[in-house]
Amino acid sequence: MILSHVLERSARIYPNAIATICGEHSYTYSELKDRVHRLAKAFQQHGIRQGERVGMLQLNCHRFVEVVFACFEIGAVIVPMNTRLAADELSFIIKDSECGALVVDEMLTPLVDSIRPRLEATQLYISGGREGYVEYEELIASSTPTPEIAEPNENDIAGLFYTSGTTGIPKGVMLSHRNVWMNALHSIISLEIRPCETNLHVAPLFHVAGFPIILTAALSGGTHVFLKKFDPRAVLETIDRHQVTACLLVPTMINYVVNYPELSQFNLSSLKRIFYGASPIPSQLLKKAMEAMPECAFIQGYGQTESGPLLTVLQWSDHQSDGSETGNRRLTSCGRPILGVRVEVFNEQNQPVKPGEVGEIVGRGPNIMMGYWKRPDDSAFALRDGWLHTGDLATVDDEGYIYIVDRNKDMIVTGGENVYSTEVENVIYTHPAVREATVIGVPDSKWGEAVKAVVSLKSGRTLDEKELIAHCSARLAGYKVPKSVDFMDDLPKSGTGKILKKVLRDEYWKGQERKVN
Amino acid sequence: MILSHVLERSARIYPNAIATICGEHSYTYSELKDRVHRLAKAFQQHGIRQGERVGMLQLNCHRFVEVVFACFEIGAVIVPMNTRLAADELSFIIKDSECGALVVDEMLTPLVDSIRPRLEATQLYISGGREGYVEYEELIASSTPTPEIAEPNENDIAGLFYTSGTTGIPKGVMLSHRNVWMNALHSIISLEIRPCETNLHVAPLFHVAGFPIILTAALSGGTHVFLKKFDPRAVLETIDRHQVTACLLVPTMINYVVNYPELSQFNLSSLKRIFYGASPIPSQLLKKAMEAMPECAFIQGYGQTESGPLLTVLQWSDHQSDGSETGNRRLTSCGRPILGVRVEVFNEQNQPVKPGEVGEIVGRGPNIMMGYWKRPDDSAFALRDGWLHTGDLATVDDEGYIYIVDRNKDMIVTGGENVYSTEVENVIYTHPAVREATVIGVPDSKWGEAVKAVVSLKSGRTLDEKELIAHCSARLAGYKVPKSVDFMDDLPKSGTGKILKKVLRDEYWKGQERKVN
Repeated sequence: MILSHVLERSARIYPNAIATICGEHSYTYSELKDRVHRLAKAFQQHGIRQGERVGMLQLNCHRFVEVVFACFEIGAVIVPMNTRLAADELSFIIKDSECGALVVDEMLTPLVDSIRPRLEATQLYISGGREGYVEYEELIASSTPTPEIAEPNENDIAGLFYTSGTTGIPKGVMLSHRNVWMNALHSIISLEIRPCETNLHVAPLFHVAGFPIILTAALSGGTHVFLKKFDPRAVLETIDRHQVTACLLVPTMINYVVNYPELSQFNLSSLKRIFYGASPIPSQLLKKAMEAMPECAFIQGYGQTESGPLLTVLQWSDHQSDGSETGNRRLTSCGRPILGVRVEVFNEQNQPVKPGEVGEIVGRGPNIMMGYWKRPDDSAFALRDGWLHTGDLATVDDEGYIYIVDRNKDMIVTGGENVYSTEVENVIYTHPAVREATVIGVPDSKWGEAVKAVVSLKSGRTLDEKELIAHCSARLAGYKVPKSVDFMDDLPKSGTGKILKKVLRDEYWKGQERKVN
Repeated sequence: MILSHVLERSARIYPNAIATICGEHSYTYSELKDRVHRLAKAFQQHGIRQGERVGMLQLNCHRFVEVVFACFEIGAVIVPMNTRLAADELSFIIKDSECGALVVDEMLTPLVDSIRPRLEATQLYISGGREGYVEYEELIASSTPTPEIAEPNENDIAGLFYTSGTTGIPKGVMLSHRNVWMNALHSIISLEIRPCETNLHVAPLFHVAGFPIILTAALSGGTHVFLKKFDPRAVLETIDRHQVTACLLVPTMINYVVNYPELSQFNLSSLKRIFYGASPIPSQLLKKAMEAMPECAFIQGYGQTESGPLLTVLQWSDHQSDGSETGNRRLTSCGRPILGVRVEVFNEQNQPVKPGEVGEIVGRGPNIMMGYWKRPDDSAFALRDGWLHTGDLATVDDEGYIYIVDRNKDMIVTGGENVYSTEVENVIYTHPAVREATVIGVPDSKWGEAVKAVVSLKSGRTLDEKELIAHCSARLAGYKVPKSVDFMDDLPKSGTGKILKKVLRDEYWKGQERKVN
């Protein structure tokens, strides 16, 4: 497969285009190819073989891209790791994936040092000039740009992407060379990637939502601009300074950017497309963002790690509501199946649901994972009957738009009624004092589970439980209205900005078992 | 694979978009799906099984598209046939491919009738209301839209495309479901196909150059407009009337359209893209076409049946010469490898040539044919060392642009020197009296082969042998200058508009064997 030849092609067609900009570093495609070839050769000289795993504990940085392409060139398997993992989780993933090397961002060496005694002594640790680590730039400088380019089979593993690890034991999603490649082609078509765009990488690249842009941008001669950490001011400054044209943001980030007090001081006219996804976006927030950036197209992608990730897209044309009920409702959809992947919403008999019925989103295509690393039972369950079962519950309308109502495990069963938390959250977000909100099921002796809202407020705003419940009662069926509301300064979030429902839920379920499908 | 589900998807996303316009017939995607489902069901009821071959002797027409999708839905193998074949060639292909059914355009039933005694009695013949044929529209009307949709393996054959048959015995190129699908994705990306375009099909759809647009247009909700025969006036009228946005034309067609006396009477402002290819275009003609349609982008595709077909693309941006020598030379290039396919020019040691050296174009990717039907030796020769060997000779420049110098078999060896006919033809085309020209090698007792030009003139123009030889002598090395010139009213051409060098050459080589690599 062609992944090992991507950079060769880019350097041939776009030799002098700027490939990466990271702080003060900037490289053309020609220079990037040279650095990647050297890194790949160095990996080979250090004994990293085809098929061996290379852990990546890296913040967004030009080196992230270099490690990815170096691994592709020699057929090594990348294992991008969530940089917010606790020591135990990190140590589990390094052992589970049996990494032969670990590339570590300088800021994260203390975390790695804390678990070094638990890891194998034979591993190669690479970072920026810290004792016990091989120095990254020296490795490149002392190498030659002459790796043996691998010719892996298309069904060889290109990457292990561990699912968030916030729910149960982390599982390594095996994406093959073909999976990664096909998702890139699908993305170029469905997200309408154009040649030579300037992409801002601020959503974490270790996550499967941000990752594919590395490939789509390289294939089209685009420039990668990196931010190591999300900060709304830094995002705005970077768009302004580097004339960024496209950017993936998760809803939490859009929230911070759109509500940034000095937003109007930045020139964002270069920005033509914001991709968003990874978690549902409240439609109030989406409308506000579209008003704040009227010349920027918004494109939503939906998928999950197991699908590589893209399954559906809500196109920019779908966002342009005519003010009708249908037009407004469409903003709450995750779109329609992308070209190249079959996506359906199945009932329990594995048949497509009728419009309005709730079923599970399933997908089938060349982007769907090969399975979970060393977990045949979990793999068989997720991939049963030839379809990936996403665990996401949804409805479809008569034009084929899909509406996610909840994750299977996030659905609340109260008094025999199913409550989909997204629906309740959408109503809570319409209250002007609310910054962030999530809805979970908590144990209740009478109802089995009771609906609870956990909310953070905008600074300077006040809101009490009674007022918010009244707000919901006016807009929702009685059984969907939260029985109680907790207020927090900040909701707990994953490295990708997802609100961690499980962390919140676990507080209430201590000592009790919660039954889910 | 997804080919059997394409129309289901199109009808879901673009139900009311016009899918096909053919004469007075016009169908939406919803209607097209219904017709195709019915045809597919009828095929199944007539015993056409998955994997069985269905011959298509059809001019460009909405029914061509219907047969293609009906076959894809039931997993039958399409066998599009050149509508200009002689009876013997046709009979050979029908027998070689073992067709279980033959769909015939009404205009071509006399040809089929002439060979009926030689064919199997068990075959199903479908056409428009002629004795001995099942009636196409009755077949659809009496059927139900409930076929059993096949789930073929991606490596099952989707189509057998016979190579032109103008050179030796026709060979059936086996393109798998995956080959066809991947070429469609590559085409959407590299030819920048946009949703909902209006495509004029005037280049024959039986040919692998025109065929893929059936799929790319259906995938993007585009409208297909059909012309059964090429005629410059009909092309211009159709573009004007149906607001055609994109069209594939072979160079011969461009020649006729651009030189059409009443060109300026038609409104061609809707036309945004002309794809051209299938044979080399003289750069003088290309420049004239670009001047005649200044708002239309020209995009050249290069490939061959065996590669499904797309290998390289010369983008519109590559056409915009700055008047420099490099810019002008680039118009004679067939472009650079498309995204998704590896294309190289190899020397005899299977290594990439240096800039300027002549080698053979080779390709590798998921679009490359599985081989020739029932011809393992030919397959092994064409696909040796993991690469498709195209037989086309070319150079590469230092920016990776490929320049075809000749087909292997068209190269003239004269006095030990290699003469690439394309180079000589390009010079001849710069003479203002020349309409069409081709250069071949003819037997010569002194030189082995001698360079001969065969030329047709523009109406009202005169030119004699001496004058044209002088024109060439002023611009070419002596050994490349034609030793003789023949004038003809019209050069012999294949159904796709390619000038038939072999037919011309055979006249001169009667009774003698010509040695080629």
